[in-house]
Amino acid sequence: MPTQVAPARSPVARAIRGAKRGLAKGEQTRADIVDVALAMAARVGLEGLSIGTLAEAVGKSKSGVFAHFGSREELQIAVVREYYRIFEAEVFAPAVRKPRGLPRVRALFENWMRHTSAELDSGCIFISGAVEFDDRPGAVRDALAEAVNAWIGAMTRAVAQACEEGHLVAGADPSQITFEIHALILALHYEARFMRRPGSLARARQGFVNILQRYGA
Amino acid sequence: MPTQVAPARSPVARAIRGAKRGLAKGEQTRADIVDVALAMAARVGLEGLSIGTLAEAVGKSKSGVFAHFGSREELQIAVVREYYRIFEAEVFAPAVRKPRGLPRVRALFENWMRHTSAELDSGCIFISGAVEFDDRPGAVRDALAEAVNAWIGAMTRAVAQACEEGHLVAGADPSQITFEIHALILALHYEARFMRRPGSLARARQGFVNILQRYGA
Repeated sequence: MPTQVAPARSPVARAIRGAKRGLAKGEQTRADIVDVALAMAARVGLEGLSIGTLAEAVGKSKSGVFAHFGSREELQIAVVREYYRIFEAEVFAPAVRKPRGLPRVRALFENWMRHTSAELDSGCIFISGAVEFDDRPGAVRDALAEAVNAWIGAMTRAVAQACEEGHLVAGADPSQITFEIHALILALHYEARFMRRPGSLARARQGFVNILQRYGA
Repeated sequence: MPTQVAPARSPVARAIRGAKRGLAKGEQTRADIVDVALAMAARVGLEGLSIGTLAEAVGKSKSGVFAHFGSREELQIAVVREYYRIFEAEVFAPAVRKPRGLPRVRALFENWMRHTSAELDSGCIFISGAVEFDDRPGAVRDALAEAVNAWIGAMTRAVAQACEEGHLVAGADPSQITFEIHALILALHYEARFMRRPGSLARARQGFVNILQRYGA
């Protein structure tokens, strides 16, 4: 049920699209199609993407869309990469401007929460994609897992730095802390989006405070 | 990609099926179809269920399957209810035999973890269903949300009792604690099933110990 399908509207997404104006026409068209496909996939899932529906949404023929992507799989991979690019620009990039250690970990969590909250009406491709592709080996699954692993790896490194800086206890296990933080984001998405429980955002934030207190140096 | 489709094989599922032997023939057939549909839905999702594939798997005609379920939606709801019945029998029932308070909360978490771990090869309908139906209003979504809410409600009551018994600090918020426990289960499922990260089970268990320490009386 693809209802309204509009390109992503966040300031960062707009800035990225603005930067694309320097692209050659073919690349520009491809980028525009990916934008629409991304908005569509957020609603109907990567597996819900159809070249036919997409062609209709961008006002092209099916073969016109196929000319830019050799296959539906290639389109799905392009969507995963674009999603990760926006995620990185919105969540990661502003946080690495903060000082190493706890300030950066706090910023990463806040940005991640904000990103997740903004998606409560549409859906997160990392979460829906994990359910769609957890037992479907192949290039789309690989692209998704690569993106999620890169992000979890970045978060784990930031936590490790906070331990090195003495902001979190030296003996703490960064993978354990990152697992607990990731857990809060997943619960926020599940309880707010599916269960529509009020107070989920405050619970996730309180959970993060609890983690920091427990591992605080 | 419905690969092997076999009825659920846990001891409890077998016991439940045993109990069904007292059913009238029509009811027995319906129960058998639901068993196969449940195993299928665990792999391909509720939305992946097809009356045609199911009919083939149970060796009946499509109209033979339709005779037991007026619609695909009715079949999906029957699957959700059967999943919840097994979940309740495996996770909830053995735990309520433990004393009120922390022993019961520990048993609920252990059983929930065991249930989730057993499903890492197939998939959890409460998790995949949430992604499939989070923006699809209707009777299937309602049945899913009802089941999940009943379970989260039961967990929250057990945590509240642990506060009343003085096993957890009196001022603690049972909804907050249950949110954090649910979070660990979701992260276990995500990181072990999709990311295939070793050590996820130990991290979830450590996260639970951390929660109890933080809220311990």
